[in-house]
Amino acid sequence: MNRRLCLARRPAGKLSVTDLELIEEPVPEPGPGEILVRNTWLSIDPSIRIRLAETTPDGYLPPLRPGAGLSGLALGVVAETRHPDYAVGDLVSHTLGYREYALVGAGAQTIGGYGAPTRIEAGYLPPQWFLGPLGSAGLTAYVGLIEILELTAADTLWVSSAAGAVGSLAAQLAVLRGATVLGSAGSPDKVAYLRDELGIAAFDYHQPALAESLAALAPNGIDAYFDNVGGDHLTAALDALRPQGRIALCGAVSGYDAAAPAGPPNLFTMVAKGLRMRGFRAGSFNHLEAPMRAEVGAHLAAGRLVHRESVFEGIEQAAAALVAMLSGATTGKTLCHLA
Amino acid sequence: MNRRLCLARRPAGKLSVTDLELIEEPVPEPGPGEILVRNTWLSIDPSIRIRLAETTPDGYLPPLRPGAGLSGLALGVVAETRHPDYAVGDLVSHTLGYREYALVGAGAQTIGGYGAPTRIEAGYLPPQWFLGPLGSAGLTAYVGLIEILELTAADTLWVSSAAGAVGSLAAQLAVLRGATVLGSAGSPDKVAYLRDELGIAAFDYHQPALAESLAALAPNGIDAYFDNVGGDHLTAALDALRPQGRIALCGAVSGYDAAAPAGPPNLFTMVAKGLRMRGFRAGSFNHLEAPMRAEVGAHLAAGRLVHRESVFEGIEQAAAALVAMLSGATTGKTLCHLA
Repeated sequence: MNRRLCLARRPAGKLSVTDLELIEEPVPEPGPGEILVRNTWLSIDPSIRIRLAETTPDGYLPPLRPGAGLSGLALGVVAETRHPDYAVGDLVSHTLGYREYALVGAGAQTIGGYGAPTRIEAGYLPPQWFLGPLGSAGLTAYVGLIEILELTAADTLWVSSAAGAVGSLAAQLAVLRGATVLGSAGSPDKVAYLRDELGIAAFDYHQPALAESLAALAPNGIDAYFDNVGGDHLTAALDALRPQGRIALCGAVSGYDAAAPAGPPNLFTMVAKGLRMRGFRAGSFNHLEAPMRAEVGAHLAAGRLVHRESVFEGIEQAAAALVAMLSGATTGKTLCHLA
Repeated sequence: MNRRLCLARRPAGKLSVTDLELIEEPVPEPGPGEILVRNTWLSIDPSIRIRLAETTPDGYLPPLRPGAGLSGLALGVVAETRHPDYAVGDLVSHTLGYREYALVGAGAQTIGGYGAPTRIEAGYLPPQWFLGPLGSAGLTAYVGLIEILELTAADTLWVSSAAGAVGSLAAQLAVLRGATVLGSAGSPDKVAYLRDELGIAAFDYHQPALAESLAALAPNGIDAYFDNVGGDHLTAALDALRPQGRIALCGAVSGYDAAAPAGPPNLFTMVAKGLRMRGFRAGSFNHLEAPMRAEVGAHLAAGRLVHRESVFEGIEQAAAALVAMLSGATTGKTLCHLA
């Protein structure tokens, strides 16, 4: 049998494990051109929360209806193949996570409708790194810094959610490129992790006020802000940015539980200070995967990047993993490992 | 005597003429290095409303205290000079408007602390054009289109407040550069002006809903948005923009009466669609004044640009001019002419 995590009912506010349910169904049979993948690693990303709401933002993937299966990035091994390019045992990444077995169309179009499978040559590397620093998280951090913020060594950069999968990579890559970096997180443990293991100036966003923390660590303001949080964090960044400053909008996890999160009341400061803000999704920059892997891979190989994983074991824990990650209880890359 | 328009009391919400008062004082005497300018044209711009509030956005000019004189762009004739570079009779633009006589420091620093005077060679042109299409309004429209939006002929552009000084120039320059342009305004008269005289597709923002009007005129969405309004207009633009769309934040007149205007609730669509937003003030792009004047001047000379002025006569009318302009009762460039 195949177990899949489905939406039981739309969450009212904060997601709870009871909003999700694991359903059992027969393992599907691949048709012509399809492969059956036995998933081994599920990427647990905050953005799936967006699709659990009644409506999704214009331009985003559609909302999931109650009863529908969750999807997300995943890594697995080809168990059956009816496509000549894929052999049993191949390691592939794809977008049909949150399930034990995935039936993946091997052409440009997948059963899920977005994202073709990609063969991974992990070699001696831990395969799950291709969901983390060498995969989507790495590409998101890299694109945000290089393409969106056009980061230079002269910049003072604030990264929010800096103990998360993307934030911790963005903060470290920025340090390695010579920038002055401050990171924020939501617990003393995470702040200690940022300071002691990642070696960056860090603060807890709960207190004192964000503006005070930013002023203490960056008394002359910041040049760039890598936003994973939105809400009050974005508001504080708009105030702290120096003239001509830049904002990369990557995520807005603070607003994912709200039907219509309030926008920043101080947006006009963008006019006053000549600020730039740009939203992005890594999936629009797949052509940068190769240079990202070259840069991140070299840093990983040389031991210059700290990479922490929060791993949950078994599909039974996928719901708990997602709830824990969304509530800020995990550090680094959150994964669900399927034996 | 010299008459100056001062803030009598902070406006609560919409500005009223009773919030302003005209005071009389002796005409000042120029000191060494200073010139006395008899103002002939006052530029009536929405942005002064920002400085009438208790606080101004970070990075903006400070708020005016009750009792303080308003300032703004103005044009005048040198009446007395104690600076070797300026002769009596010279035409200069400067930033000490809303008064009959201005004492202007002729060096890099002015008495007002911002903006040096600039000598204007108007020749046969109406001098007030150097406050409008050949001055700040022209530069704002030009910078917004060329530098901020990087407009191309393939773009569908929405300009809000398109019957205003900046909007009407931006809309027409965009048409002249080959773009598809739609403009919005707040009355049937202005919409008729946009359609019949400027020749652009136009709609009244009052009704139907902005989203409907945009969908009717740009069924495939827009590529770029020139924002003079903020608020619900910006929200509608975020929804209407196609992937990779751009927003130039120029003004936010809808929010100037509010202490903390709500930001757009759909800002996250910037992530979903990979949008860019950039705020600007023309004053940061003075190096583009020459190419702007070349382009706009050629269009004006050839009769390709419609330029309408709403002129109020006499310093006694300056308060009424400002209130009328902020309430949307004027079309084109709003000016106060001093005989």
